[in-house]
Amino acid sequence: MTVSALDSALLGPLFATDAMRAVFADEARVAAMLRAEAALARAEAEAGLVPGDLAGAIEAIDRMALDPSALGRKTAISGVPVIPFVKAVQKALPSHLEAGFHKGTTTQDIADTALILQLRDALDLVAADLRAILAGLSDLARRHRETACVGRTYGQQAAPVTFGYKAAIWALGIAEVAAGLPRLRDSLLTASLGGPVGTLAGLKEHADAVGERFAAELGLRFDPAPWHTRRARIAEAGTWLALLMGALAKLATDVASLASTEVGEVAEPFVPGRGGSSAMPHKRNPVSSTVILAAFSAGKGQVLPLLDAMAAAHERPAGAWHAEWHALPTLFGLASGALREARALAEGLVPDPDRMRANLDLTRGLLFADAAAARLAPRLGAEAAHRLVEEAAGAVRDGKGTLAEVLRARPEAAGIDLGPAFDLAPAIRAGARTADRALAETARHAALLST
Amino acid sequence: MTVSALDSALLGPLFATDAMRAVFADEARVAAMLRAEAALARAEAEAGLVPGDLAGAIEAIDRMALDPSALGRKTAISGVPVIPFVKAVQKALPSHLEAGFHKGTTTQDIADTALILQLRDALDLVAADLRAILAGLSDLARRHRETACVGRTYGQQAAPVTFGYKAAIWALGIAEVAAGLPRLRDSLLTASLGGPVGTLAGLKEHADAVGERFAAELGLRFDPAPWHTRRARIAEAGTWLALLMGALAKLATDVASLASTEVGEVAEPFVPGRGGSSAMPHKRNPVSSTVILAAFSAGKGQVLPLLDAMAAAHERPAGAWHAEWHALPTLFGLASGALREARALAEGLVPDPDRMRANLDLTRGLLFADAAAARLAPRLGAEAAHRLVEEAAGAVRDGKGTLAEVLRARPEAAGIDLGPAFDLAPAIRAGARTADRALAETARHAALLST
Amino acid sequence: MTVSALDSALLGPLFATDAMRAVFADEARVAAMLRAEAALARAEAEAGLVPGDLAGAIEAIDRMALDPSALGRKTAISGVPVIPFVKAVQKALPSHLEAGFHKGTTTQDIADTALILQLRDALDLVAADLRAILAGLSDLARRHRETACVGRTYGQQAAPVTFGYKAAIWALGIAEVAAGLPRLRDSLLTASLGGPVGTLAGLKEHADAVGERFAAELGLRFDPAPWHTRRARIAEAGTWLALLMGALAKLATDVASLASTEVGEVAEPFVPGRGGSSAMPHKRNPVSSTVILAAFSAGKGQVLPLLDAMAAAHERPAGAWHAEWHALPTLFGLASGALREARALAEGLVPDPDRMRANLDLTRGLLFADAAAARLAPRLGAEAAHRLVEEAAGAVRDGKGTLAEVLRARPEAAGIDLGPAFDLAPAIRAGARTADRALAETARHAALLST
Amino acid sequence: MTVSALDSALLGPLFATDAMRAVFADEARVAAMLRAEAALARAEAEAGLVPGDLAGAIEAIDRMALDPSALGRKTAISGVPVIPFVKAVQKALPSHLEAGFHKGTTTQDIADTALILQLRDALDLVAADLRAILAGLSDLARRHRETACVGRTYGQQAAPVTFGYKAAIWALGIAEVAAGLPRLRDSLLTASLGGPVGTLAGLKEHADAVGERFAAELGLRFDPAPWHTRRARIAEAGTWLALLMGALAKLATDVASLASTEVGEVAEPFVPGRGGSSAMPHKRNPVSSTVILAAFSAGKGQVLPLLDAMAAAHERPAGAWHAEWHALPTLFGLASGALREARALAEGLVPDPDRMRANLDLTRGLLFADAAAARLAPRLGAEAAHRLVEEAAGAVRDGKGTLAEVLRARPEAAGIDLGPAFDLAPAIRAGARTADRALAETARHAALLST
Repeated sequence: MTVSALDSALLGPLFATDAMRAVFADEARVAAMLRAEAALARAEAEAGLVPGDLAGAIEAIDRMALDPSALGRKTAISGVPVIPFVKAVQKALPSHLEAGFHKGTTTQDIADTALILQLRDALDLVAADLRAILAGLSDLARRHRETACVGRTYGQQAAPVTFGYKAAIWALGIAEVAAGLPRLRDSLLTASLGGPVGTLAGLKEHADAVGERFAAELGLRFDPAPWHTRRARIAEAGTWLALLMGALAKLATDVASLASTEVGEVAEPFVPGRGGSSAMPHKRNPVSSTVILAAFSAGKGQVLPLLDAMAAAHERPAGAWHAEWHALPTLFGLASGALREARALAEGLVPDPDRMRANLDLTRGLLFADAAAARLAPRLGAEAAHRLVEEAAGAVRDGKGTLAEVLRARPEAAGIDLGPAFDLAPAIRAGARTADRALAETARHAALLST
Repeated sequence: MTVSALDSALLGPLFATDAMRAVFADEARVAAMLRAEAALARAEAEAGLVPGDLAGAIEAIDRMALDPSALGRKTAISGVPVIPFVKAVQKALPSHLEAGFHKGTTTQDIADTALILQLRDALDLVAADLRAILAGLSDLARRHRETACVGRTYGQQAAPVTFGYKAAIWALGIAEVAAGLPRLRDSLLTASLGGPVGTLAGLKEHADAVGERFAAELGLRFDPAPWHTRRARIAEAGTWLALLMGALAKLATDVASLASTEVGEVAEPFVPGRGGSSAMPHKRNPVSSTVILAAFSAGKGQVLPLLDAMAAAHERPAGAWHAEWHALPTLFGLASGALREARALAEGLVPDPDRMRANLDLTRGLLFADAAAARLAPRLGAEAAHRLVEEAAGAVRDGKGTLAEVLRARPEAAGIDLGPAFDLAPAIRAGARTADRALAETARHAALLST
Repeated sequence: MTVSALDSALLGPLFATDAMRAVFADEARVAAMLRAEAALARAEAEAGLVPGDLAGAIEAIDRMALDPSALGRKTAISGVPVIPFVKAVQKALPSHLEAGFHKGTTTQDIADTALILQLRDALDLVAADLRAILAGLSDLARRHRETACVGRTYGQQAAPVTFGYKAAIWALGIAEVAAGLPRLRDSLLTASLGGPVGTLAGLKEHADAVGERFAAELGLRFDPAPWHTRRARIAEAGTWLALLMGALAKLATDVASLASTEVGEVAEPFVPGRGGSSAMPHKRNPVSSTVILAAFSAGKGQVLPLLDAMAAAHERPAGAWHAEWHALPTLFGLASGALREARALAEGLVPDPDRMRANLDLTRGLLFADAAAARLAPRLGAEAAHRLVEEAAGAVRDGKGTLAEVLRARPEAAGIDLGPAFDLAPAIRAGARTADRALAETARHAALLST
Repeated sequence: MTVSALDSALLGPLFATDAMRAVFADEARVAAMLRAEAALARAEAEAGLVPGDLAGAIEAIDRMALDPSALGRKTAISGVPVIPFVKAVQKALPSHLEAGFHKGTTTQDIADTALILQLRDALDLVAADLRAILAGLSDLARRHRETACVGRTYGQQAAPVTFGYKAAIWALGIAEVAAGLPRLRDSLLTASLGGPVGTLAGLKEHADAVGERFAAELGLRFDPAPWHTRRARIAEAGTWLALLMGALAKLATDVASLASTEVGEVAEPFVPGRGGSSAMPHKRNPVSSTVILAAFSAGKGQVLPLLDAMAAAHERPAGAWHAEWHALPTLFGLASGALREARALAEGLVPDPDRMRANLDLTRGLLFADAAAARLAPRLGAEAAHRLVEEAAGAVRDGKGTLAEVLRARPEAAGIDLGPAFDLAPAIRAGARTADRALAETARHAALLST
């Protein structure tokens, strides 16, 4: 029985991937906690603090002894899952090893370190999708670098650009957020080992050595000081995911709009059965965009508990840390679905250059108003030229002809060659040039993801 | 495999109740959708639009034909669960009934109406907990209406009150939010039936009659116009839950603080095994408060997607509606755990009147500074009296004696009887009186919940 | 020198009205604090606690003695503006009245009561705009109850409706939030009088009488218990404003989309100079919609500090209350601009019925797909009919003719009269009928605002 | 007349600094817009596109011609301040220069570039405060690296640490966020120049050269592609400020708690007149902490409009961009007050080592429970040792003596030397060691701020 849409058998597959689900599954969490304890045992054995066979014994524990449901019933009493976990492990260990288990550490060390191990896997999934998205969008942009289409501001047609330019801006918007991943990874993938109040007092002079070895065992960074209540790295993981979904949402917003019936310049990739309506057989709903936009809307607010948790009281707070447990996996779950759908769009979006061309003609030359004003300005002055074109635009809107026709009929324009103003070629060149620059920058960012 | 903490076998039991989980379980959702379709069939049969045996046939469908996991895999393609659901039902119906099924309606009608049926059950659970919480806190307040304790502002001891007064304020704070439940219920428990674009065009002149009958079949209100994109009632359900958790969080904030080692005026109810630490055997962590505060922190931000969804485009938006699916059940899930723990506190909190008394003496009379200033003011003027007491307070803090001693030694105070200023009795009377008023108001609010 | 856009001389006029600005101006705040103190003096004089001429003396104080800037410099030290305010008033009062001033009360009583007096004025402004908006939209809906236009779901054309139906849904969406105003007003317009820790201990047996008289003097409700840390009513004011802006944002979202070049079904009211572009002389940007959407985006998150403030510690918190001071006036400021622009839309939106008609033809009959499927279903079965129409829709999209033509050429459809499926009249009737119902409900809600 | 608390003459001084206010003042904004236009003129003159004397003429414009209030009235019509600004400048320019002014650019270029110039100044203010805060806290930590005090988890006393350790964790928590400033600065300080739809089409082959020169003139980075609708850098500025205030709020949360009457381990720096109460002359409210916590609460939600703005439609959105205008300056305003108060705490916090020592004795040895269990574990086994100490803790709480006494009376403990378990020295050594490590890391981060 599930409460959340992410975990519902009925709804969850729409919103999260199985791969991400596996990362945060209870079994994975228990396995990560065991792995953290084993690494600690190994580090402490090295310092002569616990028997050398403890780590192996931990790893050998029968997973049936660590049933999540049984542990969960006890978590509801203890308030943290690590307490029943520790008791269950102790019970499963040979009795001579019991005393050395969990030595010098505290629940939060194990819970946080296990989380970090899960986050490492989660970030790998994110990175793989990002690489594919950037490759797909870059390719799309290159293919359409000279496909003329209209640029829009405030929902209004503004001036011509190219579709490749639009796609390159999507790519770069995602890439510049993606470029933060390696740095986030570096700061996030840090072991937690502070003991009850963060000073590792129980390990005495071995504290630093054990801490460093513990982290190394797990392939994690060691933080020189405990981060039980320094939660910037966790909050930053959340804000980064929110930024990432924001960049994906830019793509989805544009696609949903471009795919609207009246614009019709793109279609989401065709998937049999997708986007239909139970009532309207002709519909092709933009399901990928819908999933991305829903993830962004549902995800943004999840940064708040992560920010709240930064104001953690003293050496461990009552509530703030627990709130992280809700927010962070949910953000990764939502991101997994948004990335999957963004990848589908990046790799399969279907542009319609004919429709783009038709839309460029929709306003009978108004798109070139700026260019026309620029040709009039040298003689009329900028403001007067702007005003004249504004008036002419009104006439065009009232059906008095194309902008070229209306302007040519005006005495102020007599003798001025307006022809070049209505030429698409410069706009296409400018679009292609900007796309190229954006793609080069995208490639620079994307390269960071492969390391 | 689960992503969210609410649904984790390991963590979920700490944060949500099984009863609430059952309300939002997939099986309950599918059952509610079936119930909505059957009600529609009955209403349409009445109008002669579909065969009279359709409703019964819908109800008789073997639930094995509607396996959530199988439907969920198709939801990931269709974008809404109602589409595979409708197809599965149609397949399971006798072929002569197929054409009449789902007539004139649309996916959102069925999904929203099913949700409302679930919300009705969810609100019943909430109301039951609220009744118990208000009864428990009121009883606690009555028992301690004259138990002297300190009032605190900005974390500083300020002046004496009674513990019953504090408990009554908790009660009233929760009660005044709870009082909004009947009204919320009235507006929320509304059937959705608008058809593809909200006008029920497919039902022609039968639209109103079918709509009203449909709602009546389900015991719901009928909205005179479609609410596909009028989401105030859904958003308001979310803001109400956030307000409710805010009122519970007031209780939890105070309990966690009062239960701190240095204050020690209350203890959370004793539960064997609860609140311990894996490392610190003497700890008694306030787990109930922790769960409530975590729920509030994780829950607040969930109102944002619900607000976002109000700005739904046209007759159905791409994304905004889907985001509700995440936020609302999560809010109810979090609230269920917070309510359970608040009830535990309301019914079992353990006050320590001796410790309260000891804390009143901690500042050697400074708590009576206001009363002392009031006795000095008639002669010295308000500002001078205030200043004198401020100076005396400094001397007390510097260890120069109690406030009474210090003031009596000051020439300005000569001949003024300061005795009454240091009498606890008036503060106790004022606390008890205010508690009584707050409890009467609480009872007035609580009465609304029993209807 | 201002930080916020709301108060910038350059940007503020776009986002907030002068009338709302006047409500929250420093002068208004100081005046409201004085008014609260005078009311308290009058109530206490009645109980024989302070001299009878105190209230008048307070009211007679020269406002030059209460310069906001001078007080503000001291607020930065004291932490609350009431402290320098009280000192300044005491200094300005005849010395025999000084001691009675501010008797038994505390800073928060005066600050909160003054705020409530300001909120009363603010809500009056909101109500006036709401009445005008509902009248304007209702009128618009009535004028266009039979103007055919397209309904859209997921950004896709779905089926025909009427423009009056769309406008009526905007109206009802706003009206149902507006309907909560009287109740909010009732709960919000409550005096605060609790004294230092909420028990009014300083007023002894006069507490209730003074409290009630104090509230009555100000035309406010008296709360039987202090609300220093029961902040539901403040938080609810914030959530209500967020819901209100959400309902306005529904209107703005649709208008911005309908006004887009490719849709072109409405234009924002023409205002000379509005919506132009510094670079593109032909542009007519939807400025009203922009302001509303910006207000909603900037405003939503302001509910969070108001929710946070509910978890106020003990008898007054450190920080949570102060955060309200930022959020609530900002919400009213943003709402004032959004309401002004929504009113402009409600009263002046320019629909283009010809363009609506043209857009209905854009998909060559696909809008009638649902109706066509309904006519095919009796013979083919619902699923097969749906599938056939889906296929035909594909052919139409591929340019093989109109839906009617394609379907008529299919053998499965032979002998079925599809004509009625392509008739707009039933959709118009359904739209008009739904609009009527929505408008009746809107009127019922709007009536609540005139009391 | 102001709406917002930040700009109120009465409240604003408490929450924002004059220096930050000057950065965002209207005059500064207008000056920054002028500076951007002059830089553009210079860059375009270099390319031969506009007269060489244009830039100088722009700079020479009489500021009286650009009165913010007059421009603001027109902004309310135009929807963006740049439009009336451009007209006013054109009017003030010699007529032969008019046509070249604002060439090839668009309102958003000028508005965004001007904003960036303001943000550069704002970040300089932030950096200066951060350096002082880190220096102050580091010094505090060094002075108290061996001052014993209690560590607390879940509000409960847990185990001894040192006050220097606590201060070092505050410092490091702030430092690790501060360390992100140089990188944020690099990405944020980027000129915007894209023209109407981002492709700089109007500048033809000169586009790149003009763009690069424009940025260089202003000392900004040039982005290879327009960022009109790539808002990650703006959103990231917001999330960074929220993280920063979160780190400051950790300090404030602890200080407010440590300064509470019952704990009493620190006092905020003494400022005459600060923290008093209008009613309670003895109060010393933690005003600095209050301001920081209020800023964090009011500020967190401001990240939401900045995230929303990432999903900007097409080449310029309707509303999303405008919402940034509210959120970002508000965040800087709130941060300025929080930083000022954090600096006051860092430089002037008054610890009370005697009180810390007294609090360590409050639980009669329970703080050493973990150490005691560790000494018992080798003989009893970890779980049994933990259980024994848990039982003994109960006896201590019931007043049966100190933990040492109770344990020594237990037969299981016979012959075990428990003495070392109750020695403070190891905890002090561990605290000091951890403080040293944290301070070294803090210094490493702080060094980044001086570049």
